[in-house]
Amino acid sequence: MDPRELGELGLIEVLRRRAGAPGRRWRIGIGDDAALLASRAGTDLVWTADALVEDVHFRWSTADPRALGRKALRVNLSDLSAMGARPLGFLLTLAIPGDAPGARVDGFARGLLAEARDAGCPLVGGDTSRAARWCISISALGELPRGRALRRDAARPGDALLVVGELGGSALGLHVLEHGGPRDASERRFVRMHRLPRVPLGAGPLLARRGWARTAIDVSDGLARDLGHVLASSGVGAEVELGALPLPRGLARACAQRGLEPWPLALSGGEDYALLVAAPPDAPGDVRLARALDTRVTRIGRVVAGRGCRWLRDGTVEQPSGIEGFEHFKPL
Amino acid sequence: MDPRELGELGLIEVLRRRAGAPGRRWRIGIGDDAALLASRAGTDLVWTADALVEDVHFRWSTADPRALGRKALRVNLSDLSAMGARPLGFLLTLAIPGDAPGARVDGFARGLLAEARDAGCPLVGGDTSRAARWCISISALGELPRGRALRRDAARPGDALLVVGELGGSALGLHVLEHGGPRDASERRFVRMHRLPRVPLGAGPLLARRGWARTAIDVSDGLARDLGHVLASSGVGAEVELGALPLPRGLARACAQRGLEPWPLALSGGEDYALLVAAPPDAPGDVRLARALDTRVTRIGRVVAGRGCRWLRDGTVEQPSGIEGFEHFKPL
Repeated sequence: MDPRELGELGLIEVLRRRAGAPGRRWRIGIGDDAALLASRAGTDLVWTADALVEDVHFRWSTADPRALGRKALRVNLSDLSAMGARPLGFLLTLAIPGDAPGARVDGFARGLLAEARDAGCPLVGGDTSRAARWCISISALGELPRGRALRRDAARPGDALLVVGELGGSALGLHVLEHGGPRDASERRFVRMHRLPRVPLGAGPLLARRGWARTAIDVSDGLARDLGHVLASSGVGAEVELGALPLPRGLARACAQRGLEPWPLALSGGEDYALLVAAPPDAPGDVRLARALDTRVTRIGRVVAGRGCRWLRDGTVEQPSGIEGFEHFKPL
Repeated sequence: MDPRELGELGLIEVLRRRAGAPGRRWRIGIGDDAALLASRAGTDLVWTADALVEDVHFRWSTADPRALGRKALRVNLSDLSAMGARPLGFLLTLAIPGDAPGARVDGFARGLLAEARDAGCPLVGGDTSRAARWCISISALGELPRGRALRRDAARPGDALLVVGELGGSALGLHVLEHGGPRDASERRFVRMHRLPRVPLGAGPLLARRGWARTAIDVSDGLARDLGHVLASSGVGAEVELGALPLPRGLARACAQRGLEPWPLALSGGEDYALLVAAPPDAPGDVRLARALDTRVTRIGRVVAGRGCRWLRDGTVEQPSGIEGFEHFKPL
């Protein structure tokens, strides 16, 4: 899939052919000025966009093209799920160097379209252009029954704070990649978590449809920062037990080998794409939810009146060091 | 608006404050995992994305930040109009260097949000990140009555080919910018057309609502290439009279001064964002349409059975030289 050999229209034609027909809700897909979707009464539409930028979100020296293609779409699907929506389709804005290796473009496209098929979220349009470095921007559209969205501003005192999925694995994988690469099978597993986070995509829509939660956010910038968004939007506080955070199996030991603390990775590492949920008192508990969602669900604390988060260790207040989310523009 | 001083969240907060509330159709705008729009029965949604990349679509040595902000949104609004849709809102994915000058970011944001206000197309979300060079990706959503979309595949033999707007001015402006800059007021006018094309945004929705056209496309890659898309999609041919192409006032003379032919600029220059329309025989003629749309409308030819386009000069077939649209990945 050599961009210079195919040209812009050829590249779009290959993507269109491989993507296939987008299903009957889409009256027009790739190949017009824009895509056309039939509205459905009684629903809300959820709309998000997220970019992956070369040398910022990934480096070609360590990235795998197929995993990157999957991840580019998956981080957007994660935002839809965090609102409680099922995906309808996505647009791809792909800016790449004219001399991008054909195998790299091909691998990226294969990963992207495999993720689209798995998620039932067809590619319906977009834009391709030349650029000095890769800039992959994806916009995704989803839908849910009217009034059921999981909002950041709806957490209330008494809600349980639950994490669907695990925290810290992606950040450890990134550390491993940037410090000499993996030394054993355990480290390779964390690298895989960084390259392609396991996102509980079905959780948000199920919680929204059943009315089991009012609030969710995907943990993309670290638990501390993303929980902070929920608390600020909802005008509430929280208590979180550090010992309860769901770390992946083997994380503590792998951290010890590298001389790292696991908590900063879980609290501010980011890119885990676990789902942080505030569940009202009448919602099912973590054990029942884990069964319904068929994935790990962990109660990490509760929403309280007030402001900010109190971090507890065995019930005692502790200020963990190094809590800050990823910041794009901090001075280097 | 210094990115390093504001940080990512500060940058988003400034954009959110300046953008204002997005109107009641948007149940959630900036500040959640995704934006939330109430569906409306009996409508189709139109969805597009377009990027502007530094050193590909613009250079900071010649670009004006405010005009660039307006243009970034306007090229997307042009796609919505070319489908016959009115805009509902847009997402901004902004990737910029950490040391981008504050005045430049500020000017870009002011132009972008002024365009949004003028068009009634609010900013409802997006993503910001660091990047080595600017990559501005915008996704826009619009709406139109069900079944009224102006499609590329609906042109039929007997339709009149009309151009709403003018052709060639943007390409001349780019040539002037890249060859020593403007020498007089006339050349400055073409530079302005390149920096900020005058797009007939109301034309598409009016044509669609009144049923006066079935097919339209915005001329972004040059008339020859964009007309080619319509003919290929519709399985028809066309005859176009070169002498009828709507050149901006003063273009021919300005071209002569620079030793250029005007036709290649009009046919393959691109970025004019005029609207090419195929109007059925019972639609109003160009004179009535120009009055209804309050802009220049020109009949340039007609759709015929067959394939490809016959270019005529005073009724005689002519193969104009240098007809090709902008190609992103051609070998340099």
